[in-house]
Amino acid sequence: MAIEGRSERREGPIRYGMVGGGQGAFIGGVHRIAARIDGEFALVAGALSSNPERARASGAELGLDPERTYASFQEMAKAEAKRPDGIEAVSIVTPNNMHYPAAKAFLEAGIHVICDKPLTSTLADAKKLAALVEKTGKVFVLTHNYTGYPMIRQAREMVQKGQLGEIRVVQAEYPQDWLTEKVEDAGSRQAAWRTDPKQSGVGGSTGDIGTHAYNLARFVTGLELDSLSADLDSFVAGRAVDDNAHVMLRFKSGAKGMLWASQVAPGNENALKLRVYGTKGGIEWSQADPNYLWYTPFGEPRRLITRGGAGSGPAAGRVTRVPPGHPEGYLEGFANIYAEAARAIRAARRRNGKPGRDVLFPTVHDGVEGVAFIEACVKSSRKNAAWTKL
Amino acid sequence: MAIEGRSERREGPIRYGMVGGGQGAFIGGVHRIAARIDGEFALVAGALSSNPERARASGAELGLDPERTYASFQEMAKAEAKRPDGIEAVSIVTPNNMHYPAAKAFLEAGIHVICDKPLTSTLADAKKLAALVEKTGKVFVLTHNYTGYPMIRQAREMVQKGQLGEIRVVQAEYPQDWLTEKVEDAGSRQAAWRTDPKQSGVGGSTGDIGTHAYNLARFVTGLELDSLSADLDSFVAGRAVDDNAHVMLRFKSGAKGMLWASQVAPGNENALKLRVYGTKGGIEWSQADPNYLWYTPFGEPRRLITRGGAGSGPAAGRVTRVPPGHPEGYLEGFANIYAEAARAIRAARRRNGKPGRDVLFPTVHDGVEGVAFIEACVKSSRKNAAWTKL
Amino acid sequence: MAIEGRSERREGPIRYGMVGGGQGAFIGGVHRIAARIDGEFALVAGALSSNPERARASGAELGLDPERTYASFQEMAKAEAKRPDGIEAVSIVTPNNMHYPAAKAFLEAGIHVICDKPLTSTLADAKKLAALVEKTGKVFVLTHNYTGYPMIRQAREMVQKGQLGEIRVVQAEYPQDWLTEKVEDAGSRQAAWRTDPKQSGVGGSTGDIGTHAYNLARFVTGLELDSLSADLDSFVAGRAVDDNAHVMLRFKSGAKGMLWASQVAPGNENALKLRVYGTKGGIEWSQADPNYLWYTPFGEPRRLITRGGAGSGPAAGRVTRVPPGHPEGYLEGFANIYAEAARAIRAARRRNGKPGRDVLFPTVHDGVEGVAFIEACVKSSRKNAAWTKL
Amino acid sequence: MAIEGRSERREGPIRYGMVGGGQGAFIGGVHRIAARIDGEFALVAGALSSNPERARASGAELGLDPERTYASFQEMAKAEAKRPDGIEAVSIVTPNNMHYPAAKAFLEAGIHVICDKPLTSTLADAKKLAALVEKTGKVFVLTHNYTGYPMIRQAREMVQKGQLGEIRVVQAEYPQDWLTEKVEDAGSRQAAWRTDPKQSGVGGSTGDIGTHAYNLARFVTGLELDSLSADLDSFVAGRAVDDNAHVMLRFKSGAKGMLWASQVAPGNENALKLRVYGTKGGIEWSQADPNYLWYTPFGEPRRLITRGGAGSGPAAGRVTRVPPGHPEGYLEGFANIYAEAARAIRAARRRNGKPGRDVLFPTVHDGVEGVAFIEACVKSSRKNAAWTKL
Repeated sequence: MAIEGRSERREGPIRYGMVGGGQGAFIGGVHRIAARIDGEFALVAGALSSNPERARASGAELGLDPERTYASFQEMAKAEAKRPDGIEAVSIVTPNNMHYPAAKAFLEAGIHVICDKPLTSTLADAKKLAALVEKTGKVFVLTHNYTGYPMIRQAREMVQKGQLGEIRVVQAEYPQDWLTEKVEDAGSRQAAWRTDPKQSGVGGSTGDIGTHAYNLARFVTGLELDSLSADLDSFVAGRAVDDNAHVMLRFKSGAKGMLWASQVAPGNENALKLRVYGTKGGIEWSQADPNYLWYTPFGEPRRLITRGGAGSGPAAGRVTRVPPGHPEGYLEGFANIYAEAARAIRAARRRNGKPGRDVLFPTVHDGVEGVAFIEACVKSSRKNAAWTKL
Repeated sequence: MAIEGRSERREGPIRYGMVGGGQGAFIGGVHRIAARIDGEFALVAGALSSNPERARASGAELGLDPERTYASFQEMAKAEAKRPDGIEAVSIVTPNNMHYPAAKAFLEAGIHVICDKPLTSTLADAKKLAALVEKTGKVFVLTHNYTGYPMIRQAREMVQKGQLGEIRVVQAEYPQDWLTEKVEDAGSRQAAWRTDPKQSGVGGSTGDIGTHAYNLARFVTGLELDSLSADLDSFVAGRAVDDNAHVMLRFKSGAKGMLWASQVAPGNENALKLRVYGTKGGIEWSQADPNYLWYTPFGEPRRLITRGGAGSGPAAGRVTRVPPGHPEGYLEGFANIYAEAARAIRAARRRNGKPGRDVLFPTVHDGVEGVAFIEACVKSSRKNAAWTKL
Repeated sequence: MAIEGRSERREGPIRYGMVGGGQGAFIGGVHRIAARIDGEFALVAGALSSNPERARASGAELGLDPERTYASFQEMAKAEAKRPDGIEAVSIVTPNNMHYPAAKAFLEAGIHVICDKPLTSTLADAKKLAALVEKTGKVFVLTHNYTGYPMIRQAREMVQKGQLGEIRVVQAEYPQDWLTEKVEDAGSRQAAWRTDPKQSGVGGSTGDIGTHAYNLARFVTGLELDSLSADLDSFVAGRAVDDNAHVMLRFKSGAKGMLWASQVAPGNENALKLRVYGTKGGIEWSQADPNYLWYTPFGEPRRLITRGGAGSGPAAGRVTRVPPGHPEGYLEGFANIYAEAARAIRAARRRNGKPGRDVLFPTVHDGVEGVAFIEACVKSSRKNAAWTKL
Repeated sequence: MAIEGRSERREGPIRYGMVGGGQGAFIGGVHRIAARIDGEFALVAGALSSNPERARASGAELGLDPERTYASFQEMAKAEAKRPDGIEAVSIVTPNNMHYPAAKAFLEAGIHVICDKPLTSTLADAKKLAALVEKTGKVFVLTHNYTGYPMIRQAREMVQKGQLGEIRVVQAEYPQDWLTEKVEDAGSRQAAWRTDPKQSGVGGSTGDIGTHAYNLARFVTGLELDSLSADLDSFVAGRAVDDNAHVMLRFKSGAKGMLWASQVAPGNENALKLRVYGTKGGIEWSQADPNYLWYTPFGEPRRLITRGGAGSGPAAGRVTRVPPGHPEGYLEGFANIYAEAARAIRAARRRNGKPGRDVLFPTVHDGVEGVAFIEACVKSSRKNAAWTKL
């Protein structure tokens, strides 16, 4: 229970704006709750929609000052940079293809960026963005939100402490079922842009969820990928991007992995699951029941470690809010990324410095690797699942 | 996904203060997060501790204006009532014995009250408080937070729609293990006041958690209690209140129930569970995994209804924030009570009116019944488990 | 994996007969499979039905010698006792009211008895039977089959070794749903005799399943009951016996318990569950998933001990047949009672002696206590749940 | 509840012998129990070990006539074929490399064969054996025992009835952990032969368990494989065969699959799991909890179908023995294969005919495909996971 009560509160919340996330959007609302949970951020500006009408209405609904409800992110970046009370950070929650231009505008305006995943819709954009982050020195946080779950922090800590020994096998999967039918043609805005390569990039399930599973495996294990072999499908006739992905992974250490992403697996809502096995033990975690981590030291009974309960260590403890047995969920995990972002931004604010070593969030480099993963999957699949490097 | 985006946002957040909840407290922090999640409240004042030093430090940590960090709730009620920008509501998160005097002070100052459970430490206080709420007409919300869980709303809706038929059997339980040893003597402040009858009232496990289980059963089933038979124990030597309670329930309808509360059951964190069986079906719900509701229409396979998923209806939908498969937890459930409180307070603010019929929160009358339940348990147990009316 | 391969095999199987268990019966077939699994018994005679036609047809179906297919148990006891190759043991699987006369006939004929539960339909019969067993010195095994499950043996061993410390709380329950409607009037033979007090005794759910739950709690914990308080219902209109039972338990040691038996709880098939909590730890077991035992040493993570897996000890090992991860079930648990019976019968056969101390099966005394439990429940309930001794 | 009570009982049990399965073996004992459960078989002869001493001792322990305890399978085939009361069937439970010569000897002696999996240690042997079965016309049953589980029959029936629609994705896995360390060098006989390619064939985990997972997927879905891409590892240094296998599957219909087999995944005992997703629904099944089948009709809540419970159909019903809620396990599933074998052998016995169309057991052709699967995995892996046809 370590989240609240930092003395930085006295400095007041971080002023931030949002690009995207207007009426009818999904992930924008999640970001706003995540930003509110710990009271570290205050939403004061927005370019909430590319549709001016919707942008205005959305801003009003959120109680924004009409003067700070902008019709475009370009306008917002320019105007806010000039204000003495201008935003210090921006959250970018648009379709993927807008991440790069929006992030560029704000970074160049000296504003920190929190950006939804995947980083961009092309690897070329991703690399340019990484270079720009380096150049400007601004904080850049990518919301691979699952890395914010306490028991994922716990898992990572256990791997780092050697409790699993040398890792041999990684099993990552993220099945869903919401694209089992062709809902992109039936009025689902969420489905429409996610299955449009111009907006989402070349990956469908690989980009939307496979990249989450990949990032999570990397975050927990620390293993670096050597190459992958991918077999992608678009099972729904006429769908422009993959909706099911089978991927075999080879890590540089010699460890091996499998990754399955699917949006056509009935009965699966957001069944992200990670399993890691080493010479000394194994762990298993499921996003739908995130407060539990199964841990088996080889040769001993399986143990169910609960968030904040016995066996749960400091890495989980610093991102947990309530006692064990009281479940935390998706929003708290997401909020942990925002809390880490706040620590980084406050460090930058006060001494233009870096946050503590314990502050963990996905960076622009993780984002570049994520887009490289997506593109490698597509490339491998087009070559009959040939082994492909990132 | 119905929480955010109310037009009331434009009116600005509800200004509230807090009594209790300073450094080292537990539930105060939970209330503050719950109040923040939907952006409906702004914490602007506090009497955070009876210890002036701690009150000051706690206020500073939370970023409160030092001028509005009070040394006592009496002072706070008086001062805030005078301010044009004074608090509209107060959250009372002290030990139980302080609920009544604090609530009284604010109600009499014309300020709405959100109060932790149980309502008071004595039934006499509870009844006086209920009368005062009636008299003042202010909003009074008791945070029996488990009634805020979406799948509990779902369960209630299913009972009301008759999907279970006539209810026959109710099984409610709330086991914990944190008082397995005598931690009240070992420096645990949480344990110390909860096992001190002067602060907590006559009930130990009955008051702290049994009353939650009872309230939940009442909320979901709508059944009214006729009488109960209780066998209470203080298994830990020298403990001043019960730490395990076995209770048999007889409802006026003829339905029967069992209720188990324990703080000495190793392996149980906050294992609140409710099971209800009727002539047409049964439901089962567990707080540790709150996004699931097991439902069996008699003669058909068990179904696992997920929050927001197929089979989940409007009552759950109006208090849910993220898609199915992305778990919500304890804080979101708690926040739902705050969101309902906000609706009631805004209704009172704008037209001195009442919120919509769909707005549900535990009232002062639920609180009176809860304290009556505690006292009836203790009375029954002292009479060798004689059947006792509330 | 210790079941097979006893040298006693060389002596040939134990010849046994069956009373009851003809066409349309349920538990007789279970006994026959249980008797076959380890190859220790050979069925050679039967009085399989009180209906002579059905008795004959059932015997033929089972491949019995027509000469040894009897029309009554009296005839069978007499005839088999005379044969040099006569049965050494009999399994009694009739409705409860026939247990006593049948057992009497065989015991007096010098034949060992394996008898289904509850022991008899009245306490008076039970006591007479116990006296007769003492007098004749024959082996008498009561098939409280759940005591045969390996993880129940494991639980008992852990309690005996002190891993739970001093026991404080016992929670036992056995809900079913098959009598939710009045199927005894709709042609269900199983339901018809079980709801007929003349055949089943005064208890309905208490006798059919409550007694199982009670026996299991006693077997695992070793605690002796002081008194109970029971609230029984017949929820289905016109039902002659209880179909739901709420019972509070007081053990002589000061431990307390609750017991719930129900046949009207939709969604429950045979959801027998036992939970035991002591000063040092807790255990939880569920019959539907019998290969698992949850064990929490207080202050440590929950552990899932699997049958034959790490943490599973010798008491479980001697009654397990296949490796961990390959589930055993109801029939293997039942077969373990038969295997124990075989050990006792072989000990009696060879040296008129007693089996080893590790041989465990429910005795006639457990049976007397079980019937006393049923009658005490009914008596207590009739006295408004007054505390009642066995 | 359809197993017992066939009129064929009157003909007496099927006389069978066993090759392998002496002291210290594992699977032989399983076969013997499976053969006993329904009383359809009587073990009357054995060549239980290649070690004459152990063969004799093992036979004595099992109560075999010393005259029918043979020193070799060749001798046994010859001698039993001559006896008027000779065996009608033989169970072969040796290491894989002995399956072919043993099966050949008995088939040529006119004796039906029940053989453990995989069929043989080489594809060449497998094909010769298939030809021999065709030529002799004898019954040949391969004990891919998992196809005997009732809920697997249920799953197959649901697929055949179209409840899943057109199948798109198959996920099969069989992780274990018993070879995490090099136990083949530490005295484990089970490990020693299974990791010796001369005895087991070229596959390690692929042959021992991967082939089970493959067979199960084929049995349930009916899909035919087009090609596979396999990445095999021997993670334990010095191990002669694979202990972890990642395989991608392409079916002729266009469906895709993944298969994971591992013997180095700590925390997994025998965690065989099958998941199948189609255009209309999905199913999930786990061997460790075999009485449950999760079924989701797309767009409806998940349903938990239990063996024999609501929603469980005739295909499961004909291989179930006890009511829902009373778990059946590994041995009953295995016994179902023996019960099917008995039906086929009795059909052959009485009219030299075929059993009914509902009789299902893995055949020699399934066995050939299984060995082809193993060899294709090894071949693919050696070619850098090139797509390989069976």
